Amino acid sequence: MTQNIYDKEEFFAGYSRLARSVAGLDGAPEWPALRALLPDPSGLKVLDLGCGFGWFCRWARQHGAARIWGIDVSEKMLARARETTDDPAITFTRADMEQLDLPLESFDLVYSSLALHYVANLSALMAQVHRSLIPGGHLVFSVEHPIFTAPAEPNWSRNAAGRKIWPIEGYLDEGPRSTDWLAKGVIKQHRTVATYINMLIRLGFSIANIEEWGPTEEQIAAQPNWADERERPPFLLVAARTYRR
Amino acid sequence: MTQNIYDKEEFFAGYSRLARSVAGLDGAPEWPALRALLPDPSGLKVLDLGCGFGWFCRWARQHGAARIWGIDVSEKMLARARETTDDPAITFTRADMEQLDLPLESFDLVYSSLALHYVANLSALMAQVHRSLIPGGHLVFSVEHPIFTAPAEPNWSRNAAGRKIWPIEGYLDEGPRSTDWLAKGVIKQHRTVATYINMLIRLGFSIANIEEWGPTEEQIAAQPNWADERERPPFLLVAARTYRR
Repeated sequence: MTQNIYDKEEFFAGYSRLARSVAGLDGAPEWPALRALLPDPSGLKVLDLGCGFGWFCRWARQHGAARIWGIDVSEKMLARARETTDDPAITFTRADMEQLDLPLESFDLVYSSLALHYVANLSALMAQVHRSLIPGGHLVFSVEHPIFTAPAEPNWSRNAAGRKIWPIEGYLDEGPRSTDWLAKGVIKQHRTVATYINMLIRLGFSIANIEEWGPTEEQIAAQPNWADERERPPFLLVAARTYRR
Repeated sequence: MTQNIYDKEEFFAGYSRLARSVAGLDGAPEWPALRALLPDPSGLKVLDLGCGFGWFCRWARQHGAARIWGIDVSEKMLARARETTDDPAITFTRADMEQLDLPLESFDLVYSSLALHYVANLSALMAQVHRSLIPGGHLVFSVEHPIFTAPAEPNWSRNAAGRKIWPIEGYLDEGPRSTDWLAKGVIKQHRTVATYINMLIRLGFSIANIEEWGPTEEQIAAQPNWADERERPPFLLVAARTYRR
């Protein structure tokens, strides 16, 4: 089972204070780019893997999605998600993404925001996702970028000339990385960009778009402390589709 | 026009001494991985962009390619390539990749090894490549990996703990990078992985495979000084296809 870090008191308290937890999608700087990869949700059946507080599920419903299922392993997050809506078209369910058994050809869109890098057996999950999508269905997700997850010590450093640099090492050695972020010993799975892309292709997805996200000039003007994120992308965004029959 | 660095005396002399120049494809550690992305050349019409000394053109011919065109901007390299073969099925032509006007639906395979990162207007070239391929045709190429081309000072460094690291900065700021490699002021074009992939998708290619190349354990056992290349991939390999009609 995936480490359920979100239910640790210390992590949950810290996570709850992040802009993306307080302000929702608009507090997540990569949301405009991720949204641009999405199909119009109107009339769609949507599955959100790692739904957290349910911000995306509610957004999809507000934009006309017919039926939304949000899945998360964190009881604390689901409890809060359930408090936010009584819309019968939205269902929040506790489940471990390592153990999912999804129904066949049931969703038009599978979405996941910053959750899949916690999943060790991602190819098994993506195989489940593929079979659960209708032909021509959409998969849109974000993960921490492999450049971000590679180093054992993911901290900014300086080169001999005093220039701020992000230290890459271990990029091709995939597997768990233990980092201290909001709590000690958070386990993330490092895999390369190629692994994400080739896994999807081999499962029968067609790659539609990838984004190595960094803030726009407008975002940096509003939040100057985000400028470093252009030195190395913090997030990888992927849009893929199942083939039409 | 692309900087014709290969015809500079100093660069050419240095390049001619590299293992990949002396031993050909077998002197290039990424060749087995690149070869694995290729279709069987038997009977194919092949275009090699940046053919250099013509090693790949001769390999393709030895493996049954029907007709091979090698293009390069370097007169010195083409002169040597022409000395190596009098096979009438192989044609070496001098041309600037920024100025190509390729014939329509004429090739089964377009190949390029470590040349496209010199091309400033890559989307124009890739549009030419797309129209020059038959439906269902193959594009297979390698470039220096964006992690490799991003930094203004592309040199190994050490973090506070003394661990060897590759310093990333400027990853999302695409454009020319001037580096000193074999000669001073070699201009390469830095672009992100996403830019390579999305450019191909928008032009109508289907992505078949990408590899972020690093040496295998067997290669490191034979060449221990290659071990660092697993810390960050030096090369990006891409296989894409045009759609069948």
